[in-house]
Amino acid sequence: MEQGFFLSFYQMVHTYRLDQLLELLGGDGSTVGSYDGVIHGIASLEKARAGDLSFLGNPKYRPLVKGSQASVILVPEDYMEGPADGQLLIHTKNPSFALALICRDIESKLLARPATGIHSSAVIEDGAEVSPEASVGAFCFIGAGAKVGSAVLQSHVSVGRSAMIGDGSYLFPHCWVGDYCEIGRRNRLLGGCLIGSDGYGYEFMEGAHQRVPQVGNVVLEDDVDVGANTTIDRARFGSTRIGAGSKLDNQVQIAHNVNVGKHCLIVAQVGISGSTVLEDGVVVGGQAGIAGHLRVGAGAMIAGGTAVVSDVDSGSKVRGYPAMPMMLFNRIAVLQRKLPDLFKRFDQLEKNVKSPIPEPNRPNQ
Amino acid sequence: MEQGFFLSFYQMVHTYRLDQLLELLGGDGSTVGSYDGVIHGIASLEKARAGDLSFLGNPKYRPLVKGSQASVILVPEDYMEGPADGQLLIHTKNPSFALALICRDIESKLLARPATGIHSSAVIEDGAEVSPEASVGAFCFIGAGAKVGSAVLQSHVSVGRSAMIGDGSYLFPHCWVGDYCEIGRRNRLLGGCLIGSDGYGYEFMEGAHQRVPQVGNVVLEDDVDVGANTTIDRARFGSTRIGAGSKLDNQVQIAHNVNVGKHCLIVAQVGISGSTVLEDGVVVGGQAGIAGHLRVGAGAMIAGGTAVVSDVDSGSKVRGYPAMPMMLFNRIAVLQRKLPDLFKRFDQLEKNVKSPIPEPNRPNQ
Amino acid sequence: MEQGFFLSFYQMVHTYRLDQLLELLGGDGSTVGSYDGVIHGIASLEKARAGDLSFLGNPKYRPLVKGSQASVILVPEDYMEGPADGQLLIHTKNPSFALALICRDIESKLLARPATGIHSSAVIEDGAEVSPEASVGAFCFIGAGAKVGSAVLQSHVSVGRSAMIGDGSYLFPHCWVGDYCEIGRRNRLLGGCLIGSDGYGYEFMEGAHQRVPQVGNVVLEDDVDVGANTTIDRARFGSTRIGAGSKLDNQVQIAHNVNVGKHCLIVAQVGISGSTVLEDGVVVGGQAGIAGHLRVGAGAMIAGGTAVVSDVDSGSKVRGYPAMPMMLFNRIAVLQRKLPDLFKRFDQLEKNVKSPIPEPNRPNQ
Repeated sequence: MEQGFFLSFYQMVHTYRLDQLLELLGGDGSTVGSYDGVIHGIASLEKARAGDLSFLGNPKYRPLVKGSQASVILVPEDYMEGPADGQLLIHTKNPSFALALICRDIESKLLARPATGIHSSAVIEDGAEVSPEASVGAFCFIGAGAKVGSAVLQSHVSVGRSAMIGDGSYLFPHCWVGDYCEIGRRNRLLGGCLIGSDGYGYEFMEGAHQRVPQVGNVVLEDDVDVGANTTIDRARFGSTRIGAGSKLDNQVQIAHNVNVGKHCLIVAQVGISGSTVLEDGVVVGGQAGIAGHLRVGAGAMIAGGTAVVSDVDSGSKVRGYPAMPMMLFNRIAVLQRKLPDLFKRFDQLEKNVKSPIPEPNRPNQ
Repeated sequence: MEQGFFLSFYQMVHTYRLDQLLELLGGDGSTVGSYDGVIHGIASLEKARAGDLSFLGNPKYRPLVKGSQASVILVPEDYMEGPADGQLLIHTKNPSFALALICRDIESKLLARPATGIHSSAVIEDGAEVSPEASVGAFCFIGAGAKVGSAVLQSHVSVGRSAMIGDGSYLFPHCWVGDYCEIGRRNRLLGGCLIGSDGYGYEFMEGAHQRVPQVGNVVLEDDVDVGANTTIDRARFGSTRIGAGSKLDNQVQIAHNVNVGKHCLIVAQVGISGSTVLEDGVVVGGQAGIAGHLRVGAGAMIAGGTAVVSDVDSGSKVRGYPAMPMMLFNRIAVLQRKLPDLFKRFDQLEKNVKSPIPEPNRPNQ
Repeated sequence: MEQGFFLSFYQMVHTYRLDQLLELLGGDGSTVGSYDGVIHGIASLEKARAGDLSFLGNPKYRPLVKGSQASVILVPEDYMEGPADGQLLIHTKNPSFALALICRDIESKLLARPATGIHSSAVIEDGAEVSPEASVGAFCFIGAGAKVGSAVLQSHVSVGRSAMIGDGSYLFPHCWVGDYCEIGRRNRLLGGCLIGSDGYGYEFMEGAHQRVPQVGNVVLEDDVDVGANTTIDRARFGSTRIGAGSKLDNQVQIAHNVNVGKHCLIVAQVGISGSTVLEDGVVVGGQAGIAGHLRVGAGAMIAGGTAVVSDVDSGSKVRGYPAMPMMLFNRIAVLQRKLPDLFKRFDQLEKNVKSPIPEPNRPNQ
């Protein structure tokens, strides 16, 4: 298999002239320098070659702009250096967002929306309603009583009985939306995500764990994204809810009756236990875990890998196992590395003081 | 999309009279106060409105009973306060289990077992045996030599060659049971769980990682639940085994040749490495990890996020990274927060003692 | 359901004579002792019974060889003890690899490659190219422009438009390979793994998180294994890449634009954030997390559960939250358990010195 297939494919099909790029930016771009050719690729500052577009998103890479072989570079407005010969800089408010606007155009061509209609292999049970504007792919199953709006369902999507899929939503292969669950408008459910699995609830009775039936549902409000292989459990009763505009990454686990507010970001492999509430605008870093029945205040930030075991104040930043204020964690992390030194110094000091505590009475570790 | 679709659906279809509720509790319920209407919803103490049933499960919420708008509340036998006007309290041994009994009845109506029979789109290979009492959904695949009892397979379930599915088991969409694997009776396999993937085993030979073939299987005994997107690897040889009555949550990873005892609880996102043994009744909190070739004694409790790197005694409770006795962990967690203070105090004390160790000879950190 | 179905099946169908075993080892095996019967099972040293083959792989189990009921045992060349009566020891360079060679033969019979051809239920879009040597299972979908070599696709596999699957690759049920992604030769993609899901990228503009389109792809080079329910995100632009010979375990999460080198091992439930580079031969233990935009040097080892937040030197070993040199971590782990003692000793020492700092002026914790 030859490498670079995609890039060559990409390069042949999609080229952009400078005026096309500037048009996509919608006026937010002033240029310095000049480049006469077309743009036929996108690459990082380091990897870009002649003919490529690049960008300065992360300030960490600022030193790489000078020396980049890219023909056109999106830079922030406060970037003061000039371009190389034959190179063009585009000053813009947010280079990363500017690139996103260009990529949106590429996406509309490369990964175009499938045609409207229902694939002949799909199974639609009697009593399901599917919009004529929907696109339903191969091997999709739509249960009785379900309502599917003008959404895209790629292959192998399963929609349970009486479930609802809102207009403009996009479901990738192997998604499942369980019975009675509601997916809002313009949701994006990545492959393999499972909405509406049983909550994990048992009562130990008569020598065994008895399952507690989970008869609630899951509600995803509008503009929610759910990552690949993420799981969201149906409520014990009522609804597990994800607020409008919140974005979940891959392999996230949301337990029953969790309530995630609006515009939250939940990074990959996070787990949130039952009945916990995240208020609006919370950010949770990768692999963090949050215990059950807690409240995380609006705008709080939870660092990656943190174990949250008590409520978190609005606007606060926490980190650690268990969670503590981030500043305290960072300070302790530094001091911990000095523990070997501290123990040595302490032993020496104790000796110097000629501590009157005789060894046998010293408290045990 | 209008919110509350599910709740309104739910409210219209399922209402309960008080005598029906008490009948579902099977005699374990004595009432105080009175409520004349029907029950048409279930909600938490805080969110409940008139006409709703609520319950006091977690003692944390005890102060919320007084003031709850619920018309009927399940409370423990030792709850002494009286009801509000027009409100009814039902005293019961275990309010959470009492609610489960009611929800079991709701579940039987809302999420009814699909009809018996094989969907016309399913593929059953020659030589597979499927019980006439089984329900096999759309796009299911059942391989040659497999035996499927009176089980439910929802859509997109794949059963490998010579695999077995016991009577009364329920498999949700996108499950896979690999070749030769055995699922006992009354198992509940949630969506996307994969039983029988290759164990992760390589030997580095001739400059590359050589795969070690995994020719064993997975055996789930009776009454096992497996969470959504959980993975259980087939043994290198012999069986990876989950004991009767054990319950696994979502996104759990069980490696090859692991042996989980009976009535264990394994919470979401736990990982258990190869050949480790959990004896009966072990509880493992979310996101914990257990290294390979270890033994965790009967009834041990491993706190969420713990990294277990050595054997765990029966009945013990451990926590931490790496694991230590939970009491010790909790004490250290408190002391760690005092490290900044300790370092300051130590510096001061050292100065006061006028330590005779000259700076350059002080041991380095 | 009767237990042991698999073992009895296995025992009946596959028996090996001693000369057959030695032939599979290809000359790397010298025998001590004698066993006249056939081998009809494989088991651990502890569980083996007469007629079973066992092996000494992990040195931890060395004391179990003596006393094992196995009829034939693979032992390392430096194992000096003799066999029991009627028992045979086979000395070999690497007993674990020797067993792998035998299991490879068993695998070829038990888990045979499916027959060549396209199942009648599969959907192959116009413009897809499928090798006549391929085996395409039930309910597979192959999109327009895709190229599938002499690979095996089990049931419910979805291959996106313009994706490529190399010769000799094996895809288990419920895999998805997204549009434009490239799978090399002899890859092994376990069930439910998702190659080419959207990278997680948003820009906060106008009060909401705006999705950054991800228009790159994923490239898996030759001889890559990907575990069950593992997710690998497509690049924002360019490629997310996994180098030749690297092996990923289950439930691993690889973010957009990550670049994994050759012959890396990434154990279960690891998460690697965007744009991070792993050089060749890196080993990452289970549940570790690596932040974005970092470089992990060749041959570095990252212990399970570690949180990597800065670059890692080639050949180094790190552990901890956050990561530090493994030796330092191990030392600190010991000292932490002595903190309760240290605090007590310190309080006593401070008292003895009659520290002149009055209590109220002592720095607060």
